[in-house]
Amino acid sequence: MMAWFAGCLARPVRAPGGILRWSAIRDAIRPDGPHCAGTGCVSLENTHNMAGGAVTPLDVIEEICREAHQRGLRVHMDGARVFNAACALGVEVRQVVKDVDTVMFCLSKGLGAPVGSMLAGTAEAIHQGRLYRKRLGGGMRQAGVLAAAGLIALEQMPARLGEDHANARLIAHALEAIPGVAIDASTVQTNIVIFDISGTGMTPPEFSRRLKERGVRMNGVGATRMRAVTHCDVTRQHCEHAVEAIREVCAAVAPARA
Amino acid sequence: MMAWFAGCLARPVRAPGGILRWSAIRDAIRPDGPHCAGTGCVSLENTHNMAGGAVTPLDVIEEICREAHQRGLRVHMDGARVFNAACALGVEVRQVVKDVDTVMFCLSKGLGAPVGSMLAGTAEAIHQGRLYRKRLGGGMRQAGVLAAAGLIALEQMPARLGEDHANARLIAHALEAIPGVAIDASTVQTNIVIFDISGTGMTPPEFSRRLKERGVRMNGVGATRMRAVTHCDVTRQHCEHAVEAIREVCAAVAPARA
Amino acid sequence: MMAWFAGCLARPVRAPGGILRWSAIRDAIRPDGPHCAGTGCVSLENTHNMAGGAVTPLDVIEEICREAHQRGLRVHMDGARVFNAACALGVEVRQVVKDVDTVMFCLSKGLGAPVGSMLAGTAEAIHQGRLYRKRLGGGMRQAGVLAAAGLIALEQMPARLGEDHANARLIAHALEAIPGVAIDASTVQTNIVIFDISGTGMTPPEFSRRLKERGVRMNGVGATRMRAVTHCDVTRQHCEHAVEAIREVCAAVAPARA
Amino acid sequence: MMAWFAGCLARPVRAPGGILRWSAIRDAIRPDGPHCAGTGCVSLENTHNMAGGAVTPLDVIEEICREAHQRGLRVHMDGARVFNAACALGVEVRQVVKDVDTVMFCLSKGLGAPVGSMLAGTAEAIHQGRLYRKRLGGGMRQAGVLAAAGLIALEQMPARLGEDHANARLIAHALEAIPGVAIDASTVQTNIVIFDISGTGMTPPEFSRRLKERGVRMNGVGATRMRAVTHCDVTRQHCEHAVEAIREVCAAVAPARA
Repeated sequence: MMAWFAGCLARPVRAPGGILRWSAIRDAIRPDGPHCAGTGCVSLENTHNMAGGAVTPLDVIEEICREAHQRGLRVHMDGARVFNAACALGVEVRQVVKDVDTVMFCLSKGLGAPVGSMLAGTAEAIHQGRLYRKRLGGGMRQAGVLAAAGLIALEQMPARLGEDHANARLIAHALEAIPGVAIDASTVQTNIVIFDISGTGMTPPEFSRRLKERGVRMNGVGATRMRAVTHCDVTRQHCEHAVEAIREVCAAVAPARA
Repeated sequence: MMAWFAGCLARPVRAPGGILRWSAIRDAIRPDGPHCAGTGCVSLENTHNMAGGAVTPLDVIEEICREAHQRGLRVHMDGARVFNAACALGVEVRQVVKDVDTVMFCLSKGLGAPVGSMLAGTAEAIHQGRLYRKRLGGGMRQAGVLAAAGLIALEQMPARLGEDHANARLIAHALEAIPGVAIDASTVQTNIVIFDISGTGMTPPEFSRRLKERGVRMNGVGATRMRAVTHCDVTRQHCEHAVEAIREVCAAVAPARA
Repeated sequence: MMAWFAGCLARPVRAPGGILRWSAIRDAIRPDGPHCAGTGCVSLENTHNMAGGAVTPLDVIEEICREAHQRGLRVHMDGARVFNAACALGVEVRQVVKDVDTVMFCLSKGLGAPVGSMLAGTAEAIHQGRLYRKRLGGGMRQAGVLAAAGLIALEQMPARLGEDHANARLIAHALEAIPGVAIDASTVQTNIVIFDISGTGMTPPEFSRRLKERGVRMNGVGATRMRAVTHCDVTRQHCEHAVEAIREVCAAVAPARA
Repeated sequence: MMAWFAGCLARPVRAPGGILRWSAIRDAIRPDGPHCAGTGCVSLENTHNMAGGAVTPLDVIEEICREAHQRGLRVHMDGARVFNAACALGVEVRQVVKDVDTVMFCLSKGLGAPVGSMLAGTAEAIHQGRLYRKRLGGGMRQAGVLAAAGLIALEQMPARLGEDHANARLIAHALEAIPGVAIDASTVQTNIVIFDISGTGMTPPEFSRRLKERGVRMNGVGATRMRAVTHCDVTRQHCEHAVEAIREVCAAVAPARA
């Protein structure tokens, strides 16, 4: 879609621990030239989904923005979970995004609306964004029905994200004690818990199936890892139940490992 | 967007009274060649929005599909209002679309859902459509909330479209008697009423403003016409009130016309 | 290709006699808005191919550029034959293009090179143009072989375009006297001669075929017209021969018309 | 351009020694799905430019084609230098390309024409290709001038490619003996010689500059390597002169290394 719609290519950059740093970006910047299109924009995912909800430190964002802007590059924050980042940092979202040129964030996911994402940026960016929204089929008619849910997401939900983070830590710490599961609970900063199950000898689809039999829905990522996400529809009790279910599933295969 | 996303150009064909006929399409078909892309698809809007909700007769659809298919062309029905067409024809929607290759219809508009459109077609077309949906940003997460409204739209709303059509005819016939308004009520087949106000000396924006003061929301189309749409949130009483409001607005400017 | 590559749509504007005027352009300008992309550029073909090589007067270009620039629009000259325009006006090409933002012209066609077109414009436009050239597969390796022909086209050929124009007028005036052919020789300003053969009862492909038997290659345009082009490889004698061939072809069918 | 024009992304696959193998391709194939576009085509560069003109063995091509075709994938040969591959293998080009669906090859480069590349494939592929050619601005007028050079390239030049390969080996073997230069001459199969100059302490631009002072034009690739190409305009004497120039340039900096 990036190619098809925007005519752009991404140059993925390694972000150890989910933290993209300027030193890595710098080497990937390509100048405009007769043989290739130049780099135009740095996109920064915060929190980082596949790194388990990792939060980018504020000074890292500041450095990226300062250096990128000096070279005429824009910085976009892929902030689907930026409210979780702000909560984890104990600051307002506006502080997290103050230096970026544009930020997209989701009203769904952690904020709990059934649908909806927003783009924020300069007046010029939003003017352009409205045209692209139309190109992508946006321009709804009775949007108020959906916007109502979005208002609740913005006004009432950010304050409770700390609960999701506490629940995620609860899961992570409990998983550390389960044989067959590998996780470093100290890396769980927000509402995503990714853990390795290669020690159980099970594949993620099999693990998912067994959890589902116990009333827990959880998908795998890649060949050996599971990914759990806490949110407003999941209580502390649900999380404790999920931990128990994981314990049972792992225990069931323990002899096989012995 | 058609250009940007699909890389296609449309060749608009005149459809007198909103009825696109094969004889007009035939002359616009361009063969594939070294200097230009060939025609690939005929798109047929039914009912026709800007022709006041005109309904394409079944035999016209059949002829277009037969002739197009003979030449290897696909036929797509732009059926945002195809349930209104079926209601006006007194047939099932499946009869209206039986010969076309694909049909898009809206769960919003006449069927009353807050949001949502559907594409129907062959398994192959839907397989392709799912990929294009993703390219356009589709692939929702908690889509069930929206789908619930869509189910009501599909199951309960088609049966009541006749009311909207009766209300539209009520408005159209009443408008015929209002000085300054020009309309042929016999052309109003579904839920759209387009009428000319050039006899009032007012522009559509001014006419809209005066109607709004009387609690009626109606937009103009083009330089001299207004467009009213009946739907499930508009009762017979609302329509009578709208007619009264139009009468008042026209009467207020009558001396200016004298 | 315009759609596919640039994601743009053209809004064709009628140009009676091949002369595009500001009054016609003005009505086609569409402002940027949430529902549609705004007009960005005016493209002006000079000389006008399908209007028989018509030359746009300098004051018409000036008015278009002045008005377009006031509205923030760019003006591009599709100047494949702009050297013919300059020759017909008796001015330097630089005067014809002085107000436009960009101009494309051909080293082939009237200037006689086997291949090659050039884009001229501001440094910024050319910087962008180099990137688009690469996107379109440009960026040749041993381009000097082709550039050598281009230098001859630029340095030696413009001075002789008057001969082509005189030859075209010669053909046009001679055609006026041939029964079955319709042409107004006074409209032939440059090197293109378009004439109507509906009076002969022949189709353009048939007319082409008969001319080819007499050593003259000429294609039709549309259903009833032929198009002759004079250039550096066609002498006055060739043109006289072509006229004679046309006369013969028309005479052969004369009884059929009687 | 791939993104912009074709809306595709490439998934680069490592090809050790310039030989792309099915085992590496297999892991990169992505099935069509609701969240991503599937893999459609395998592109195989032969000879491999940046691997120093490496030739893909015939059985490797056969395996890739067989396996790809079994999965419904097309195979395209990026055969800019496929005539060099055929020469090195001692077979006809038709044998090298017999299993691929499409092949592009250059009339320039080794075959010596000033400009021109050709696409060969099934009738259906060429039919599509003609449309894409037009989209890319192809469709030349006086193409015969260029085609004449292309005919010589096709008819007379393949037979002499062995000379270029012998010259490249001559250079490669001579370079092995020059201190500061690193190269494995046994890997030079065709007309490209890539060698490492990090032992000289010079950067490629500096090395290029010093060679140019001695009448030899050669560019660097990457941070530490130079790339020499033999072709029909370069004789054995030229190559011996180039080796001598490299020896001098390296000798000049030898004390710095000591």
